[in-house]
Amino acid sequence: MNPSIRDVAKKANVSISTVSRVFNNPESVNQEMRERVLKVIEELGYAPNPFASGLRDNRSKVIVAMIPDIENPYFAEMLSGIEEVALSNRYTVMICNDIQNEERFLHYVKTFVKMKVDGVIFASTVITEFYRKNFEALRVPVVLASTEGREWNLPSVRVDDYQASFDATTFLIQNGHEAIGFLSGPEQAPIAGRERYEGFVAAMKAHDLPVSAQHVVFSEEMSFDAGFAAMAKLYAKMPHLTAVYAASDAMAIGAMQFLHQQGLEVPRHVSVMGFDNLELSRMVSPGLTTVAQQITKIGKTAAELLFQAIENREEERDEALESVRMEHEIIVRGSVRNRRLLEE
Amino acid sequence: MNPSIRDVAKKANVSISTVSRVFNNPESVNQEMRERVLKVIEELGYAPNPFASGLRDNRSKVIVAMIPDIENPYFAEMLSGIEEVALSNRYTVMICNDIQNEERFLHYVKTFVKMKVDGVIFASTVITEFYRKNFEALRVPVVLASTEGREWNLPSVRVDDYQASFDATTFLIQNGHEAIGFLSGPEQAPIAGRERYEGFVAAMKAHDLPVSAQHVVFSEEMSFDAGFAAMAKLYAKMPHLTAVYAASDAMAIGAMQFLHQQGLEVPRHVSVMGFDNLELSRMVSPGLTTVAQQITKIGKTAAELLFQAIENREEERDEALESVRMEHEIIVRGSVRNRRLLEE
Repeated sequence: MNPSIRDVAKKANVSISTVSRVFNNPESVNQEMRERVLKVIEELGYAPNPFASGLRDNRSKVIVAMIPDIENPYFAEMLSGIEEVALSNRYTVMICNDIQNEERFLHYVKTFVKMKVDGVIFASTVITEFYRKNFEALRVPVVLASTEGREWNLPSVRVDDYQASFDATTFLIQNGHEAIGFLSGPEQAPIAGRERYEGFVAAMKAHDLPVSAQHVVFSEEMSFDAGFAAMAKLYAKMPHLTAVYAASDAMAIGAMQFLHQQGLEVPRHVSVMGFDNLELSRMVSPGLTTVAQQITKIGKTAAELLFQAIENREEERDEALESVRMEHEIIVRGSVRNRRLLEE
Repeated sequence: MNPSIRDVAKKANVSISTVSRVFNNPESVNQEMRERVLKVIEELGYAPNPFASGLRDNRSKVIVAMIPDIENPYFAEMLSGIEEVALSNRYTVMICNDIQNEERFLHYVKTFVKMKVDGVIFASTVITEFYRKNFEALRVPVVLASTEGREWNLPSVRVDDYQASFDATTFLIQNGHEAIGFLSGPEQAPIAGRERYEGFVAAMKAHDLPVSAQHVVFSEEMSFDAGFAAMAKLYAKMPHLTAVYAASDAMAIGAMQFLHQQGLEVPRHVSVMGFDNLELSRMVSPGLTTVAQQITKIGKTAAELLFQAIENREEERDEALESVRMEHEIIVRGSVRNRRLLEE
């Protein structure tokens, strides 16, 4: 049996896409690695699959990133990771916005067929049967970023939102807060909404703290304005709160502005915790303490998975990609006060 | 002579694209307008050009927005305007990032040919002979947004950056400031760099205030981090300054953070003025006083011009589009102190 590109990659201890690049863009691989790969190619007598090369020639060298809302800086950060990987593979990224609109989504898909796009990264939007069918009809690899499609067997890259939210809430509790309010996303949205909400509730219960409908305001959007409005509602219900945790940084910053307008200082009177670690969260004063999703890295990893899938397809390997769970961490800035320290 | 679509539009007092929509997507035109157009069509005996219809069928119904930096929220705001107009024309927008990279730009252009895109909006990047040639080869209409191509006869939509910058500086002067520093963009960039710099200098001179190299720091980027670093340099040169004006909101907010870290309050110790009126500028505390570019409207207007050009092309009319200068205005929030009031 002829050796495959994967045998070469394994023996040279590099990725399949590196081997591919040695053939197609040798200057993009560093010399040491290139020589190692070429040596293995000679040893194994590997020759690139002519059908694969044919496929390759038929490629547009374009991948598309489908996102729900370009005005949300979350996606700009994700895109920078996607573009970094695409560039190193000499691919171009085209961006499609507003993908929740099904009519628009269909128009995009038709355009992708014409363009012969090589793959799709689909971000932060709940996968339904409608989307899945269209992806299937497209017949190109699809990777999900910050969403999930387990039941459809689509590979995804995301953080564990439940655990991250549990940890954020626990951080506030460890800083001596008990009367904690939560500014939630949409109750129906499974990930940024539901999972983060459930993580909050579970952490409160795990520490024997009271938690009820009184402690939570749900919002349809997760924007600055939504956070401002939700904070006003929460404050009316919980005037004694010492900390508020918001399901997105944009909401947290909206909440900070509401508090500021009430003459309440952050963190002296009320502590604020966000979720996302947007660039924005370090631009405000005080800087926002938040849960870091490594957003750029989510984009990078999704793109790497996608190129892996593109190679698999080229090699006619029918191999499911494994989904990736990204690490999260708490980024401590100035918006949470440690009440324990002050009590001592 | 047969009446043209333009005759219909003129007589019905609607845009050409509205007449076009009455044919192609009647449900997208409100009833009153639709009936008015249909009446004129009957009166004039207008029949759509069959060649034009042929062209129309060959359309992808895709326009592309080419932007330099998706991480700059300026472009997200512009894109929302472009998308609004595209949607009402039942077009899809695809977004291409990082267009200063010539290799990437060429790859985009090749993809546009395959996709048969109907038009291009090209944003905030200096037009050179390289770009112009490629646009010409593409043979589809191009509209420039927040940049200019007068010598190439390309239509553009932008504010008068020189005048807007003159007005921003004058606003500070009218508020009793004399020791005013300027955080400039790149000296070489003709519009956001050079014109805003020249507007600042001219306003200082017009009010007989001293202005020299001491008063200005140039930065290659116009980002938050660049503003922070530039403010540090400016403060070292001008510790007595009472106001700082930055060529972008992102820079102004970076400057505010530097001042904050030095223990200086905005606006009590130092007033800060920005340029752009990004969403961001109302999210910080105090809110940033700034020059509003109506960014979303720049996007809308550019898209309207583009659809006008697409119609012209369809009608085989060789008609140059007129460039549009957008109004600017000063948005007063909390970051500029009126020194005159306090002195009285």
